[in-house]
Amino acid sequence: MPLDPQRFLDDLHKLRSFGASGVGKGVVRQAYSEADIAARKWLAGRMKQAGLEPHFDPLGNLFGLAGTSGDRSLLVGSHSDSQPEGGWLDGALGVIAGLEIARAAKEAGGPPISCVSFQDEEGRFGVLTGSDVWTGKLALEDAEGFTDTEGNTLAEMRSLMADLAGDFLPHKRFTGFLEMHIEQGPYLDETGGRIGVVTDIVGIRDMRITFEGRQNHAGTTPMHLRRDAFQALSAFNAALNGRFANVVTPASVWTIGHVALHPNASSVVPGRVEFSMQWRDADADRLARMEAIIRETAQEIAADHGVEAELGPVLGIEPAAMDTRFQAELGAAAEALAPGKWQKMPSGALHDAANMAAVMPAGMLFVPSIGGISHAFDEDTGEADLVLGLQVLDRAARALAG
Amino acid sequence: MPLDPQRFLDDLHKLRSFGASGVGKGVVRQAYSEADIAARKWLAGRMKQAGLEPHFDPLGNLFGLAGTSGDRSLLVGSHSDSQPEGGWLDGALGVIAGLEIARAAKEAGGPPISCVSFQDEEGRFGVLTGSDVWTGKLALEDAEGFTDTEGNTLAEMRSLMADLAGDFLPHKRFTGFLEMHIEQGPYLDETGGRIGVVTDIVGIRDMRITFEGRQNHAGTTPMHLRRDAFQALSAFNAALNGRFANVVTPASVWTIGHVALHPNASSVVPGRVEFSMQWRDADADRLARMEAIIRETAQEIAADHGVEAELGPVLGIEPAAMDTRFQAELGAAAEALAPGKWQKMPSGALHDAANMAAVMPAGMLFVPSIGGISHAFDEDTGEADLVLGLQVLDRAARALAG
Repeated sequence: MPLDPQRFLDDLHKLRSFGASGVGKGVVRQAYSEADIAARKWLAGRMKQAGLEPHFDPLGNLFGLAGTSGDRSLLVGSHSDSQPEGGWLDGALGVIAGLEIARAAKEAGGPPISCVSFQDEEGRFGVLTGSDVWTGKLALEDAEGFTDTEGNTLAEMRSLMADLAGDFLPHKRFTGFLEMHIEQGPYLDETGGRIGVVTDIVGIRDMRITFEGRQNHAGTTPMHLRRDAFQALSAFNAALNGRFANVVTPASVWTIGHVALHPNASSVVPGRVEFSMQWRDADADRLARMEAIIRETAQEIAADHGVEAELGPVLGIEPAAMDTRFQAELGAAAEALAPGKWQKMPSGALHDAANMAAVMPAGMLFVPSIGGISHAFDEDTGEADLVLGLQVLDRAARALAG
Repeated sequence: MPLDPQRFLDDLHKLRSFGASGVGKGVVRQAYSEADIAARKWLAGRMKQAGLEPHFDPLGNLFGLAGTSGDRSLLVGSHSDSQPEGGWLDGALGVIAGLEIARAAKEAGGPPISCVSFQDEEGRFGVLTGSDVWTGKLALEDAEGFTDTEGNTLAEMRSLMADLAGDFLPHKRFTGFLEMHIEQGPYLDETGGRIGVVTDIVGIRDMRITFEGRQNHAGTTPMHLRRDAFQALSAFNAALNGRFANVVTPASVWTIGHVALHPNASSVVPGRVEFSMQWRDADADRLARMEAIIRETAQEIAADHGVEAELGPVLGIEPAAMDTRFQAELGAAAEALAPGKWQKMPSGALHDAANMAAVMPAGMLFVPSIGGISHAFDEDTGEADLVLGLQVLDRAARALAG
């Protein structure tokens, strides 16, 4: 068997050196940063050494193509850009796994397998920007004007890679997509599972809600005359938790992660609060039922508390089911290499595979995240688990490409 | 009767011109600002014109002294500094009422009445800074190092008035203190009352509480494994509201006015929240019972939610009862001039009278605040109510000084 685990680990550590944060194994390698572009150039070189044809598209998505332009191949990969402060694995793991599997297939003279590193999965300019544009979910003209938190446009940033850019590749060049990723949650780590086979990538709904009450003196305004925006938020949260209980599954999640109180002073009854309401589920109908409960609860609580509720637009990403054949092959490979140590599970985080599922069969595999930590310098996974994940993914890839 | 309501209103409008905000009747006249010092110089001139001896102490508290240094007199006044964005009445009303009453008493050849404008009641450098220092609650040496939000020290700022400063006056020069103020709450305005006679100035307790949970990915962290700091805050708030019900009176108030969530991002389970907990009541025992409930509830909720509760020191100001004879004279004057249109009430806001009560008998009178609004450019009171308040205060002052 030509798969070379040591070469895979060596390449993974080498990729970490581009933007190494200096803190543990942390990485600072945002899309289009100097470190990101340097990493992509190095990756392109590794692809070439492996006999794969490196190809950048106009966004900076980097493919390592097997076979000639007439050949169709399975695509394996993820993304090599990081969060502003990220870990060494995240998308990098799936990119190097794709490289190793495509390289090994080439060396073994097996069916062609290509690899890919998508650009800006972490959303410096949007969400999954590279695969959004390539799969046609987002028009390049619309994406061009997106800005990062510093006000740079995507157009300016992708121009830094213009000398590398070729055309967009046709989707039909690929027969399907496989992605390996750290779980980013605690399930596998806490249950002793070593492989997760992803069934669905959950849909996300995001809404900004404002309760507008009346700002007042915290000493002279009696409790019964207050229209306290914080009290409305607290009551809304409590009511929502109760009402969701009838609708959600253990895999549903919802979060109030951002709260801005005004004027936010200890001696002033808060007159306004703006907060984020985010909910995720693999079932689009359930997402809609949760939205209905949020709307109803916000209006009821607002009326009870004498505040005005303003509900912003619902931004969302649809749930994406992984292909059943790809799930079955990943499950069979996991059972062969880690019998009883794998499980099917939804992905609560978003991944390029969610976009790919719209244009070709897609499958996804998780390895454990130690402590469930991700998007942080201390993100990590044991090397034995990394190698096991690679082997399971390779076995499934060979079955699917064959 | 020598009281001159028109002169009183004219002086009140003139004082407004120092730091007039340009928005409605709003005023920007923070302690030691150019506008504040100019206003105090003008006030000193008006005192002199009235035959009162202007006297600045080292803090910038300005007295208008009646009689000679051997005479004892009743003191009437408030403060002429404003909030960063304040209304035209607040302390200014009580200062000009004191000026008019002292002036009228002088003109009528009645018993001597002095007037005062305390410095920095609004707490640019602390809380009630001028009367805190003069009444001995706060040592000048300690106050010297206090800084405002820009980092200026009180020592630097009071040096701007050093050319005006005389000694601290002995408390025994005065037989008691009367203060007129807008209510700053909605009681009188909503019930049609025209005068409030203050029974107590409530005590204040302030505590900063932190719940430290675990920051996590909002997609991959299942609900039952979260240690969400915002959820802990919301549950704490709900539990507290329920438990307080057995302890509080309709005059008790409590406020969570400041909330800082970390990292405060819609896709991240909040790992930490710091928030303010402030409670006020006229009864020190009740304040202590409320504190016990807060401590107990915070610990219970923290245990339930898997977060650590950290409770900061309790900062506080003690409740201050107004002198019973002063209350009685104010009540008698109110009944004579506004029969059936006055009521006894606690003050939920802090005033210089709370400090004065520690060193001499003190009394306080409220006039209505339209809509309960204060510390804002649109703070206002009908002129008929201002004049009625002046007349009631004057009648009580003459009875108490006589």
